[in-house]
Amino acid sequence: MPLSTPLPAPLTGVVPPLCTPLTDSGQVDVRSLAALTERLVAAGVDGLFVLGSTGEAAYLPDIQRRTVIETVVDAARGRLPVLAGAIDMATARVLDHARTAQKLGADGIVATAPFYTRTHPAEIADHYTRIRDTVGLPLFAYDIPMAVHTKLPADTVLALAADGVLAGLKDSSGDEGALRRLLVRLRTVDRGFSVLTGSELSVDGALLAGAHGVVPGLGNVDPAGYVRLYAHARAGRWRAAADEQDRLAALFSLTDVGDESAMGRSSSALGAFKAALHLLGVIDSPATAAPQLPLDDDAIRTVRQLLEEAGLL
Amino acid sequence: MPLSTPLPAPLTGVVPPLCTPLTDSGQVDVRSLAALTERLVAAGVDGLFVLGSTGEAAYLPDIQRRTVIETVVDAARGRLPVLAGAIDMATARVLDHARTAQKLGADGIVATAPFYTRTHPAEIADHYTRIRDTVGLPLFAYDIPMAVHTKLPADTVLALAADGVLAGLKDSSGDEGALRRLLVRLRTVDRGFSVLTGSELSVDGALLAGAHGVVPGLGNVDPAGYVRLYAHARAGRWRAAADEQDRLAALFSLTDVGDESAMGRSSSALGAFKAALHLLGVIDSPATAAPQLPLDDDAIRTVRQLLEEAGLL
Amino acid sequence: MPLSTPLPAPLTGVVPPLCTPLTDSGQVDVRSLAALTERLVAAGVDGLFVLGSTGEAAYLPDIQRRTVIETVVDAARGRLPVLAGAIDMATARVLDHARTAQKLGADGIVATAPFYTRTHPAEIADHYTRIRDTVGLPLFAYDIPMAVHTKLPADTVLALAADGVLAGLKDSSGDEGALRRLLVRLRTVDRGFSVLTGSELSVDGALLAGAHGVVPGLGNVDPAGYVRLYAHARAGRWRAAADEQDRLAALFSLTDVGDESAMGRSSSALGAFKAALHLLGVIDSPATAAPQLPLDDDAIRTVRQLLEEAGLL
Amino acid sequence: MPLSTPLPAPLTGVVPPLCTPLTDSGQVDVRSLAALTERLVAAGVDGLFVLGSTGEAAYLPDIQRRTVIETVVDAARGRLPVLAGAIDMATARVLDHARTAQKLGADGIVATAPFYTRTHPAEIADHYTRIRDTVGLPLFAYDIPMAVHTKLPADTVLALAADGVLAGLKDSSGDEGALRRLLVRLRTVDRGFSVLTGSELSVDGALLAGAHGVVPGLGNVDPAGYVRLYAHARAGRWRAAADEQDRLAALFSLTDVGDESAMGRSSSALGAFKAALHLLGVIDSPATAAPQLPLDDDAIRTVRQLLEEAGLL
Repeated sequence: MPLSTPLPAPLTGVVPPLCTPLTDSGQVDVRSLAALTERLVAAGVDGLFVLGSTGEAAYLPDIQRRTVIETVVDAARGRLPVLAGAIDMATARVLDHARTAQKLGADGIVATAPFYTRTHPAEIADHYTRIRDTVGLPLFAYDIPMAVHTKLPADTVLALAADGVLAGLKDSSGDEGALRRLLVRLRTVDRGFSVLTGSELSVDGALLAGAHGVVPGLGNVDPAGYVRLYAHARAGRWRAAADEQDRLAALFSLTDVGDESAMGRSSSALGAFKAALHLLGVIDSPATAAPQLPLDDDAIRTVRQLLEEAGLL
Repeated sequence: MPLSTPLPAPLTGVVPPLCTPLTDSGQVDVRSLAALTERLVAAGVDGLFVLGSTGEAAYLPDIQRRTVIETVVDAARGRLPVLAGAIDMATARVLDHARTAQKLGADGIVATAPFYTRTHPAEIADHYTRIRDTVGLPLFAYDIPMAVHTKLPADTVLALAADGVLAGLKDSSGDEGALRRLLVRLRTVDRGFSVLTGSELSVDGALLAGAHGVVPGLGNVDPAGYVRLYAHARAGRWRAAADEQDRLAALFSLTDVGDESAMGRSSSALGAFKAALHLLGVIDSPATAAPQLPLDDDAIRTVRQLLEEAGLL
Repeated sequence: MPLSTPLPAPLTGVVPPLCTPLTDSGQVDVRSLAALTERLVAAGVDGLFVLGSTGEAAYLPDIQRRTVIETVVDAARGRLPVLAGAIDMATARVLDHARTAQKLGADGIVATAPFYTRTHPAEIADHYTRIRDTVGLPLFAYDIPMAVHTKLPADTVLALAADGVLAGLKDSSGDEGALRRLLVRLRTVDRGFSVLTGSELSVDGALLAGAHGVVPGLGNVDPAGYVRLYAHARAGRWRAAADEQDRLAALFSLTDVGDESAMGRSSSALGAFKAALHLLGVIDSPATAAPQLPLDDDAIRTVRQLLEEAGLL
Repeated sequence: MPLSTPLPAPLTGVVPPLCTPLTDSGQVDVRSLAALTERLVAAGVDGLFVLGSTGEAAYLPDIQRRTVIETVVDAARGRLPVLAGAIDMATARVLDHARTAQKLGADGIVATAPFYTRTHPAEIADHYTRIRDTVGLPLFAYDIPMAVHTKLPADTVLALAADGVLAGLKDSSGDEGALRRLLVRLRTVDRGFSVLTGSELSVDGALLAGAHGVVPGLGNVDPAGYVRLYAHARAGRWRAAADEQDRLAALFSLTDVGDESAMGRSSSALGAFKAALHLLGVIDSPATAAPQLPLDDDAIRTVRQLLEEAGLL
């Protein structure tokens, strides 16, 4: 039976959304995934989030999603809580993923609002309530309009926070103004609610604004950088936090190495994260899931150069 | 073993996207689904499309999706070809659905481009090629930007039509100008390719422009109307076709009966289709899948009135 | 004083949105604009629409807009009604353009909903009411979501049609389903209301659906084609209308000649219309307004070839 | 002749986008606009920006735009630089506004990319180059995708900054991640370039990230708050800056007082700013320009309450 690692309330700190290393034939590379997990634990992160957008959840069939959760829960050995994405179109499908994640030992569930369909805020509230009622685990709402094509309404999040349906919010909306207003309003709610920003390039500002932590895709590549950034912020060393964020923002250029006239944004960004992890010796192959296209040699060279400039290689 | 009903090439005529009747407790109502199938066969439609957007595919867990295919394949008894939607986020997940559909006796597969992620046309082409190569069935591309948030590029569709990867296109883009240009360009390609419009309110114009058929959600409610419209068009009775389309456009107002300030567009439109089928005595319950909200009594009354005005009740 | 040409109610037929020929130094080429007007009159069109999107209204300063209206009103010599676009961000600015157009002899005004700002349907209704109340001319609503980024709500159009605020609608939304529903609902309103489609590639279908006419940008290049298409439709020769539409849809490929990785869509489409008019000897220069970029020689060659294939050169 | 007040390079600090007070009959209220100017100067702001989105530039006819510039230039008496928005659809029209602003004594020009049309980055670069070449004043690019519907590409901004075409950027995109990356890349460019955030709810984070100042709509209502926030940030008192930002974020709720089912977002937000200024005794009427709708008494009461909670009344 997997170790249970109760989530702190609120969950705070650096919670990287793990890449899912694949073999060249497209299978989950269990060894590499365990190695990535170990590297993140060693860097001092505060939690692990599997099967998010960075983890290529959209591309992985159910059997591979299960392998990912099992592998990371096993590799974490109870040292850190494991959040699992239950990413699917609507309630019943999300529930199936959430139940599986619970069975496999995940400590929390992360779910978006319904997508593909057109949903009203009242329906979104019902969606989260059903998930929470069915699966007893702490539930995080995942606000990612780039993928879901609607933004979670602040009133809905606040009501679900007050009711205890939601344990937290992963905000990848990029809308820092709305985030600020939410944080101010959340102060009237019980303190256990956790707001994690997914905007990995303005973490200093988000922490200054009161966010509890960050879910940085780039944290796969430079977890220690985000751990330092978070520590600086918690200690009130805002200038140092900003300098660290600046360095990470420069490193983030690796997500642009792919030729955007020839491949999608996922191929470029997720491909670059994996190329970096491969160059760093963490994972065995930079392969991404179909139908994403591989980076060419020039792009890989640029990734290497950016890693060197960031002092990582 | 299910009866195989080879798809004509090109597939033509009226191919309704079947609603998925549910019991009040949210299970697939197998009896009602068989009854709906029988009603459509009796009305003279040319094919059956299960697990499309109208079929609430986004809301149904895998086990219910399987039940839907089994039920309709069984009820059709080889009298009509059955197309099955394989609606999911990206290639590997779509492949799982497509393989299942094939095993359960579907005669063709309908799949969108990847969604939730950001995809390049070259990746979309690869996506369809992998599906076609893995599952031997005729493959239809489903262009529904409202759900997928990108439009299938015409060049991609043409190339995949010429290569034989795609057997057809279900165009729910609502972009009749782009459709016209595609139809003109498709004439240089082998004649087996089928273009079915999902724009159920401009079917006369689409057929005049050379479309091969229609996939009308409203065809659940009034299949005979669409069969007549199609027959008029094929016989060159364009004025009669337009009059029939006008009548159906008026009936389509039932999709607006839901209060848009209180529920999503799916709740209103799919709820109204099901309410109509319930009032017509075809299905046992108007229930829609969670988290969609039910129509209130006023809305149901309006559905009844519209059915009466259309001569259906 | 300019000749007044009262608009028929409803306005019907082919009403091309005139290109605005420019000199190489960016001035309105009055001679060429008069020649274009004469060519359209000779082709048998039913009205002239200046300062629409095709007329580069967005690019022309007020003084050039005035020159355009004066030139076309003068060249039309009362033979055809002249509609003038009053394209600007909100009510007061639109009113200034509308008053000027009236003074210069325009027979009708075409205006969009407010753009740049975020507007409620009640505000849009007020916008049109103020324009109509201030300027006595017949007023057409211009529905062009690609530019305005909202779609005119059907309920608003219907209410303004019933109240007599609007004389008609130019529908460039490309949403043929919504157009069909509007046309069906408009039958309950007084018959003087005119619906003109701006979707120049599905004119046969729009006329079959009950539209009163068309505002085709491509009608600058091939006005006779649209006049024939309209005549076929009015005479119930729908097959012949569709064949003409097919020919025009093939010709429309000229709007794609520009390299989309190097220039905007306006540069390509408006540049191609002007290049065609230049090759046909109608206008003196293919220049478009800044900051649009010129087509290169390859693109011009393709325009020439498409004109030849369409039998125009 | 108006006093010239050369812009510092880079421009820094608090530069409020002035509301345009109107009389009940819709004229520019010159007295109130001068009073607002005086209030801002007294509060210690660093510059004045007229005819931005907050200034209802979209709604004002040319003659009123002129009055606004004249009034504020006159009222500023050379104590502060005055930036003027030259908001229009494309280059030639923007040039007309920019020339007028220059003649009337504006010290800098603020212009968006073309809108209503579809523009390529190369065309946007040409647009700004032509404006700068024609009007000698310092030129600020205004990135406001909510109104313009495209985002200014970072590469374009960087190239125009390096070439000296642009003196600065007003970033109202709300995309703090893109802003951070731009700020990091701008360090390689000459230090005279000014980045002002228009995201008035994350000013602390933007300043921490290296932004030079802020253009806060809410600064009409509480200029002293933004002046304090800026001073805290410049002195490295980040906690105090964040507390001030929190207070301002709570006050910002006044932009939501309008009933969104009955009026547009502009009516609510700009109406609330003006209602607040009216309640504070700065301007004579809360009237907004047509077709915006007025706030009702309940909304006004909420504005009053929020002003009281913020300690302003």
